[in-house]
Amino acid sequence: MKVLFNIQAPNKAIEPKLIDKINNLTKPKGSLGTLEDLALQIGLIQQTLAPQLHHPQNIIFCGDHGIADEGVSVSPKEVTWQQTIHFTHGGGGVNFLTHQHGFGLKVVDAGVDFDLPYERGIINMKVRKGTRNFLHEAAMTEDEMIICLMRGAAMVDICEQEGSNILSFGEMGIGNTSPSSIWMHLFAHIPLAQCVGAGSGLNSQGISRKLQILQQAVDNYSGDGTPSDIIRYFGGYEMVMAIGAMLQAAEDHVIILVDGFIMTACMLAAMQLYPDVKHYAIFGHCGDESGHQLLLNAMDAKPLLHLGMRLGEGTGAICAYPIVDSAVRMINEMESFQQASITKYF
Amino acid sequence: MKVLFNIQAPNKAIEPKLIDKINNLTKPKGSLGTLEDLALQIGLIQQTLAPQLHHPQNIIFCGDHGIADEGVSVSPKEVTWQQTIHFTHGGGGVNFLTHQHGFGLKVVDAGVDFDLPYERGIINMKVRKGTRNFLHEAAMTEDEMIICLMRGAAMVDICEQEGSNILSFGEMGIGNTSPSSIWMHLFAHIPLAQCVGAGSGLNSQGISRKLQILQQAVDNYSGDGTPSDIIRYFGGYEMVMAIGAMLQAAEDHVIILVDGFIMTACMLAAMQLYPDVKHYAIFGHCGDESGHQLLLNAMDAKPLLHLGMRLGEGTGAICAYPIVDSAVRMINEMESFQQASITKYF
Repeated sequence: MKVLFNIQAPNKAIEPKLIDKINNLTKPKGSLGTLEDLALQIGLIQQTLAPQLHHPQNIIFCGDHGIADEGVSVSPKEVTWQQTIHFTHGGGGVNFLTHQHGFGLKVVDAGVDFDLPYERGIINMKVRKGTRNFLHEAAMTEDEMIICLMRGAAMVDICEQEGSNILSFGEMGIGNTSPSSIWMHLFAHIPLAQCVGAGSGLNSQGISRKLQILQQAVDNYSGDGTPSDIIRYFGGYEMVMAIGAMLQAAEDHVIILVDGFIMTACMLAAMQLYPDVKHYAIFGHCGDESGHQLLLNAMDAKPLLHLGMRLGEGTGAICAYPIVDSAVRMINEMESFQQASITKYF
Repeated sequence: MKVLFNIQAPNKAIEPKLIDKINNLTKPKGSLGTLEDLALQIGLIQQTLAPQLHHPQNIIFCGDHGIADEGVSVSPKEVTWQQTIHFTHGGGGVNFLTHQHGFGLKVVDAGVDFDLPYERGIINMKVRKGTRNFLHEAAMTEDEMIICLMRGAAMVDICEQEGSNILSFGEMGIGNTSPSSIWMHLFAHIPLAQCVGAGSGLNSQGISRKLQILQQAVDNYSGDGTPSDIIRYFGGYEMVMAIGAMLQAAEDHVIILVDGFIMTACMLAAMQLYPDVKHYAIFGHCGDESGHQLLLNAMDAKPLLHLGMRLGEGTGAICAYPIVDSAVRMINEMESFQQASITKYF
């Protein structure tokens, strides 16, 4: 079995009309900066001069990692299931942001190493109780990878049926900066030492140890080196599910709000499979995790925010939503020079 | 006559309790970055562990500049009155943002060179039809400066009576990057060439000419060199009114959202008079105007956004509002580790 997505870059025929509309709003040309870039991108994605955002939702994919057994994170593994439950209570970091910006929230068990109480609203997409330890073997099987891609895609389908045309993806998974750093190293060809950081709070000694373990894991890897194999060998269930979600969103012209370091690494991985997925991505936030800025640079991605956050869960992406909303309002609500009877200036 | 403000730094006694509350929210310590800094600042301003934002409003001060006669701007002077009226129609750059974020909007004629239709909702605080040309004489008299400070303060009083405890200030005034650059040069001791930029769209030849004229104006200045005299000699009515508004806001512990290059220059000027005003300032946006980043650095100010905007009107400040709102929601809505029964991690 195989999963194939049909991802095309947006048709550019409408671009000149979009640019003309944006340039004729009552402001010096270009003076709304990034809002103008976003309005153009969203107009292209939606193929219209009057784009709209409907029912934004944040999907948090949660999963555990075998590599966590090697002590690569300062946080105990139990935090994954505790936080997964916590999100459904409403008192987590992501919750005040979804409330603030009117986001729906879906909490997905992609592979948490715990028997979760699904009756509380967590969506059961569990593949397995945590991935295998990639220091010694592949994190997941080929079948598991396909299941992850399909389930991520299914989550996007559900959100679209609920009326969403813009989605952010977040994650919860103790240890998941580790696979992210390795993907960054192998896909963006950046020395591993520059890809490894503190995660939820390692000190410099802890970072050295983490680097050593990850280097060993990369050295041990004897796969075929294809993107698909690298994703499978090192990836987390929550991460590959996010990749499936991103690819389905792009196929359906749904706007993808990219969160922090881990979700940026997932977008990088998604781009290895389908480069055109990037046209549908808006990068929300450059976080504090060492290497995130480097990774964004390597992807030629300009994040909307730099707020020094490193929480994940979709928080950076959701924080950026009002700016995306501003861009859409700008192109729809601002008058042109002609409408406003104002002397056109530069 | 003199205007004196009573501006004190916030009492720091509550700071340890604020820090303790923020550090015990369910997230790795420091992982909400700037949101944590903002929550601390606002908690100090409001002297509470449960700060609240009420009825945000944006006040746009509008005025014309004698120096515009020297061709320092690419935009014709008539744009000032046209845009001033335009803001009250709802189709301007600032309007879609005030709608989006639930801001009240006050459009103030501080000194526009036109007979404005006040019946349309523009607030008449006109001092004079434009300042004098500071290439040859002081832009305003001492009495005019005092009137500006008082009227700016009065606008803040009105907003507070309406229930506001957070205000952004914007401006509209063709030519007003010129006095801003001179204030930056004289107050922050930065070479004038690094303070002068394109404004609404000068080319490099235009910028050279602008620099030459402003250098001439600085050379011609023969005042006493006190902050007050420099503010008066070069300032715009809308700019000095904004300074009065900032100082009154600080006196009353109202949060000040600082907009782009011109409003940052006004905050710099306000700090020359009362350094503690800065504790009440949140810098919204670093714009594209050359020198704005330099100015912010000189003030040790970290703006929330970098969106390449250069429109003024308060747009940069208002765009940053949801981040301030997020910080307040974080400290009020997030649970502590104890409340959530989560293992405390770093």
